[in-house]
Amino acid sequence: MAHYEPVTPNIIYELKTIVGEDQVIFNDHEKMEPYSHDEVADLSYAVMPAVVIKPATTAEVSAVMKLANRERIPVTPRGAGSGLSGGAVPLHGGILLSTERMNRIIEIDSDNLIAVLEPGVITNEFNNEVQKEGLFFAGYPMSLEMCFIGGNVAENAGGGRAIKYGVTGRYITGLEVVLPTGEICSFGGKRVKDVTGYNMVQLMVGSEGTLGIFTKIYVKLIPLPRAKIDMMVLFEDVQSAIDAVPLIMNKTGIIPTGIEFMDKLSLDTSSKFLGEKKRYENCGAILIIEVDGNDPDQVRDDCLRIGELCLDNSAIDAFIADGPADQEKIWKVRRHVAEAFKAISPEQSLEDIVVPVSNIPKLMPKLEELSEKHGVLIPCYGHAGDGNLHATIVKKPETDMDSWKSILPGVLKDLYTVTRELGGTISGEHGIGHKRKSYLPLVLSADEIEAMKKIKIALDPLMILNPGKIFDL
Amino acid sequence: MAHYEPVTPNIIYELKTIVGEDQVIFNDHEKMEPYSHDEVADLSYAVMPAVVIKPATTAEVSAVMKLANRERIPVTPRGAGSGLSGGAVPLHGGILLSTERMNRIIEIDSDNLIAVLEPGVITNEFNNEVQKEGLFFAGYPMSLEMCFIGGNVAENAGGGRAIKYGVTGRYITGLEVVLPTGEICSFGGKRVKDVTGYNMVQLMVGSEGTLGIFTKIYVKLIPLPRAKIDMMVLFEDVQSAIDAVPLIMNKTGIIPTGIEFMDKLSLDTSSKFLGEKKRYENCGAILIIEVDGNDPDQVRDDCLRIGELCLDNSAIDAFIADGPADQEKIWKVRRHVAEAFKAISPEQSLEDIVVPVSNIPKLMPKLEELSEKHGVLIPCYGHAGDGNLHATIVKKPETDMDSWKSILPGVLKDLYTVTRELGGTISGEHGIGHKRKSYLPLVLSADEIEAMKKIKIALDPLMILNPGKIFDL
Repeated sequence: MAHYEPVTPNIIYELKTIVGEDQVIFNDHEKMEPYSHDEVADLSYAVMPAVVIKPATTAEVSAVMKLANRERIPVTPRGAGSGLSGGAVPLHGGILLSTERMNRIIEIDSDNLIAVLEPGVITNEFNNEVQKEGLFFAGYPMSLEMCFIGGNVAENAGGGRAIKYGVTGRYITGLEVVLPTGEICSFGGKRVKDVTGYNMVQLMVGSEGTLGIFTKIYVKLIPLPRAKIDMMVLFEDVQSAIDAVPLIMNKTGIIPTGIEFMDKLSLDTSSKFLGEKKRYENCGAILIIEVDGNDPDQVRDDCLRIGELCLDNSAIDAFIADGPADQEKIWKVRRHVAEAFKAISPEQSLEDIVVPVSNIPKLMPKLEELSEKHGVLIPCYGHAGDGNLHATIVKKPETDMDSWKSILPGVLKDLYTVTRELGGTISGEHGIGHKRKSYLPLVLSADEIEAMKKIKIALDPLMILNPGKIFDL
Repeated sequence: MAHYEPVTPNIIYELKTIVGEDQVIFNDHEKMEPYSHDEVADLSYAVMPAVVIKPATTAEVSAVMKLANRERIPVTPRGAGSGLSGGAVPLHGGILLSTERMNRIIEIDSDNLIAVLEPGVITNEFNNEVQKEGLFFAGYPMSLEMCFIGGNVAENAGGGRAIKYGVTGRYITGLEVVLPTGEICSFGGKRVKDVTGYNMVQLMVGSEGTLGIFTKIYVKLIPLPRAKIDMMVLFEDVQSAIDAVPLIMNKTGIIPTGIEFMDKLSLDTSSKFLGEKKRYENCGAILIIEVDGNDPDQVRDDCLRIGELCLDNSAIDAFIADGPADQEKIWKVRRHVAEAFKAISPEQSLEDIVVPVSNIPKLMPKLEELSEKHGVLIPCYGHAGDGNLHATIVKKPETDMDSWKSILPGVLKDLYTVTRELGGTISGEHGIGHKRKSYLPLVLSADEIEAMKKIKIALDPLMILNPGKIFDL
């Protein structure tokens, strides 16, 4: 177990010298409170830092890490705080290092189709900028309106388009990173091929802020697809819906941009909430399929072929969006599912398990069993195309809070165990962080976790960078 | 510096017990010689192992590593030996572990679009198998007819289609790996999203056999594109040819499968060798552009648009292949370039530098300068779409062998330095291995190399797995 020292007035003084007096928040509960948690609903995960600092340069970040090493003070890096696993929570107090001031788009190099960013750039603002040049960063997650690119990289964020475009990591070609011991390193760069030594870039991607602090991020861009059409396909049951997923790709050769899925419970709850229950009568599951491409006629053709294929394979009905109003109609039921369940019960644990796509139908009856066994609701919706499902555990309105708190760990354990038995894992895009670390041994062996710990200790011998995340040391 | 023990008769006895009497080659120079080198032309890189073993199972590989650790004997893993950086050469003698018997395609799971392979499967045979099901492993390199999938993963092999499809690593979703200390670990699996702990899969990919021995490989498949057309575009000079590359993607939104490039020297030498010099008169550079897709009409349209765009931007001429005969005509001059230079002089150093695409025109005059300064030929051809160029250093026929040997290190140093100054690196796909390790400090700082060494030592404290590759310890 690592040993940490407290943040003394001397340390505060040194921090002010490094990042500037105005960029250190100390002894101000109100201003510091937002830095004590991320978007995990359960506030019992929150911890206050001893001090919040906002460096503006790589040199400042490096100086902070050297100071923290010398004094054995934990440092927790933080992006926008939109994470869903407690990754940015300063579990051991100490220094909360916010990247919010490192928010420059340094360069959009359209000749090389690569942009260079600081970690605090808002992902959505970046995508707006590159779209002006007809380009596209395809790796962004669902929370793009608030999240920072640095957090996306730290979590290897996913989203709904992984089936065609992969996740964040695919688009990261280089990183300038301050190591836990303070050295400034540059790995990769403006190149899509690079085999000079170990792939430190992809080791850093998804390391949840435990192996280094990103100070510069090289992002691969692609041409913005010129056409995009969404469609909705209704099925009688989960099995037929999921059977359609590989069929689409194998029979038509088309790789959709995304294939979203909703089970009956999600569908019923969301459509009831919207007053549209009739529309989904007799329907046991839906797929929302997005297709994009360069040529609008081709994309429409692709949608028609997918629709026909689904109807030939036991779909009840299929709608292809004709314009933005239709688009909105299709997405409405999916977009409101979280809100609909919150209206029933605000107490939820948002999960992001992932199983091989073909095992989704086997997962569904297991969720029903768990739901009955533990007396909770488990609606299931998410990214069917890549097997990444938001099987959300929802407290029943009649359950009291104390019971809910004692039930939840058992439900999670059972859910994760079932997931593993189906060849899956406990997190596809949200990360382990603080929230899931006690469950990691359910999906990784002692040797596998040990190998990861060895890498952590090799790069962070005093274990001061974001301690208590992924595993305890 | 690590210390190693010799392979004694007792060790041979133990190895025979582990992998079987017939799978141990010892004291047989003729049978062992092929295992002493890879495809690096210069045989002074070759080193004989003390013993060659051919395990068939993960358990055998694990037992060998445990034995090797106990006795401090170096182990060098080997695939097909088609590498181009000396990565599979047993520099410190010891045990050469060939994966040639671990050659089963365990499963082609077309529902999940993932195959599971042993490392000794020939990449081409695998691709033939999946093509029967209308699927495609897009990550394979140029040497696919002989190379093993295990070697592709160990080197993170590239090839000509990275611009659209990325390199090998993008398609690896899971690995069963025997760590240097003998533990059997499984990372990732049949899932395209997985953030349970560090990305050990991508750390292992491209680690050149120094961090683990792969015993099972999970490969992502995609639907086989149904149409593919090649075209050739002739330009007056390198600048106009390279300027066309980002233009194609930015103006048309089309991402070609590959964009190959040949400079004037390559073109002249190859076309002269083929007796086709007239065809390329007045031509200073060519691009060979491949386009694929699902719909043949769409692909032909894409080619026409690319052709028109090039002609509007100073191309001299453009040909679109109409059938296999045309295809062959287009590729002939590119395919024969290595042979053409071998006819002039068999002494060459095949390089695979990579620079940002937009800097290729700046690289060309530098290559001419180096060529004059050192009295060598440096034809340049390769994968323009991703900036990965085979700037091959060729001995002039009149230079004697001793001079060539004394010249070459200086040419390489200058070439790599120029590459770095243009924002590039010394290897895009062949790896560092033995051949380039002394040049690594030209492109990575001491801190950057140190971070990699820390990871190596963390996982291989006795430094017995493929020692002497990437860096010395």
